[in-house]
Amino acid sequence: MTATHDDPALIALDWGTSSLRAWLLDGAGRPIEATRAPLGLMQIADRNFAAAFDAVAGAWRVRWPHLPALAAGMVGAAQGWVEAPYLPCPAGPDELAGALAAVPERHLFIVPGVIRRVPANVMRGEETQVAGALALRPDLAARSRLVLPGTHSKWVRVEEGRIVGFDSWMTGELFAVLKDHSILGRFSRDGAAAPGADEAEAAFLEGVDAARAAGRASGLYFSARARVLAGELAPGAALDYLSGLLIGEEIAAAWAPGETPLLIGDAALCRRYRLALARFGAAGAEEVPDAALAGLWRVANAAGLATPERS
Amino acid sequence: MTATHDDPALIALDWGTSSLRAWLLDGAGRPIEATRAPLGLMQIADRNFAAAFDAVAGAWRVRWPHLPALAAGMVGAAQGWVEAPYLPCPAGPDELAGALAAVPERHLFIVPGVIRRVPANVMRGEETQVAGALALRPDLAARSRLVLPGTHSKWVRVEEGRIVGFDSWMTGELFAVLKDHSILGRFSRDGAAAPGADEAEAAFLEGVDAARAAGRASGLYFSARARVLAGELAPGAALDYLSGLLIGEEIAAAWAPGETPLLIGDAALCRRYRLALARFGAAGAEEVPDAALAGLWRVANAAGLATPERS
Repeated sequence: MTATHDDPALIALDWGTSSLRAWLLDGAGRPIEATRAPLGLMQIADRNFAAAFDAVAGAWRVRWPHLPALAAGMVGAAQGWVEAPYLPCPAGPDELAGALAAVPERHLFIVPGVIRRVPANVMRGEETQVAGALALRPDLAARSRLVLPGTHSKWVRVEEGRIVGFDSWMTGELFAVLKDHSILGRFSRDGAAAPGADEAEAAFLEGVDAARAAGRASGLYFSARARVLAGELAPGAALDYLSGLLIGEEIAAAWAPGETPLLIGDAALCRRYRLALARFGAAGAEEVPDAALAGLWRVANAAGLATPERS
Repeated sequence: MTATHDDPALIALDWGTSSLRAWLLDGAGRPIEATRAPLGLMQIADRNFAAAFDAVAGAWRVRWPHLPALAAGMVGAAQGWVEAPYLPCPAGPDELAGALAAVPERHLFIVPGVIRRVPANVMRGEETQVAGALALRPDLAARSRLVLPGTHSKWVRVEEGRIVGFDSWMTGELFAVLKDHSILGRFSRDGAAAPGADEAEAAFLEGVDAARAAGRASGLYFSARARVLAGELAPGAALDYLSGLLIGEEIAAAWAPGETPLLIGDAALCRRYRLALARFGAAGAEEVPDAALAGLWRVANAAGLATPERS
């Protein structure tokens, strides 16, 4: 019997700072099995990446010892398993596939990150999500603008299927550190009641509108506290207002009138970006909820890695 | 014998979130004795403000039981000893003196904060520093622009000796939380060698220039990491570059061409603001290193509080 499309063809890993997701894919790139473990770079002691890999993919390798594995994300950073140096723009699936770093002891390959120079900017993991989003939405490959909201939001320009430029906003991390460690999170940390969904959304949109009107928001961050002290905002809604300020500021700086960007990532977060973009006049932004798997499959194919193997 | 100008006339307290400074002043507002204790609002358990007051000023009160005391700062906040509600702009020494909150059990008065509405903004403590700076520099009372750099930087407009408007930037706190808790402080937290003074200043000015060129900096924060990964910036200088981005962003938003603001506060911080302002073309900014004491004296006099008492 020869191998079929239903046989395993690739072990795919999305390996970031705080988590590791892994899939066993068939010859059409469909997941046969999936798993997830809290084995991101931050959790792995003594750089024991091999043990982490075995914990999520070892059982598959026992059954299919020759199955190739492809990983994307921070596992290829300098502090990762094996460094996969940044590729310059323009970079698409073919360029990424041609610059994989190898971990021979596990027949594993790692997708490189992408760098833009002047001013310097880097991504690692997002390049694979972009490849996946374009595989899912080939109509956007010719020329498009993709937004990957998150800890370090990326706004990416694509031309002819390749990343030609991008910018980064630390919106997610900025929100997290201000919430957990600054005076702006004090009301919530002191137990202010969380607002209802409608009140939260209204406060969020007030923040978006304020940032949009000002064009920038750093001079407004403190108003997330001052408006509460002035009785204009419920203490529990201060962080929703702040979230609106930060996302509004990102859009004010990154979005160009007329653009309808494609949003890639977590559904709840993409929804907030969609609401905020609508306030700027960019209605109808579409979403791709999770593009990592499709991107790993796309790069694996460009590298000639995905070959079905019979058990 | 009657009281003279050399006899004690006032106990003055600058009472903030993290420290408490106290002075015994003579009838000309000159310090006879000074003390400082780590008894800010954050350190005081069970709201035992009376015990904190006694710890720094109790010995003076034993000798001069009727000496009035005047405090400014967060001690007058809702979470302080007694709330001194915010006064609306315009507010100067006379308005502040007319709205003191009283703590009768210790013959203590507290200076109110100031609020600006639409958008809401508050200060508490800075209003007294502004009164002090104008007492020290009466030539600036008619019309001036004062900058109080710090945790929550204030840019204040003064007309006819009164605060007519102000804005807040969380520059100091933003820097602190990004340094201590975000990926931008990782190099330093992981032990990157601190740069020499010249290298630190050069990186700081690069950050100022980048923020100035862009007009806003939130899209550049991540470059404090990316430039290191790209080999453009020493790991130990990443935080100096970030400091330049944040201060540059504040100035880009707050400073109007042609203005030469007066800087009030910590000398090292004022020096960084002076360097940054010079990059924007605002050379020659002057400084008032510590205006709290002069402000407390100015408000006490406006309130008729400062009366020499013989021991």
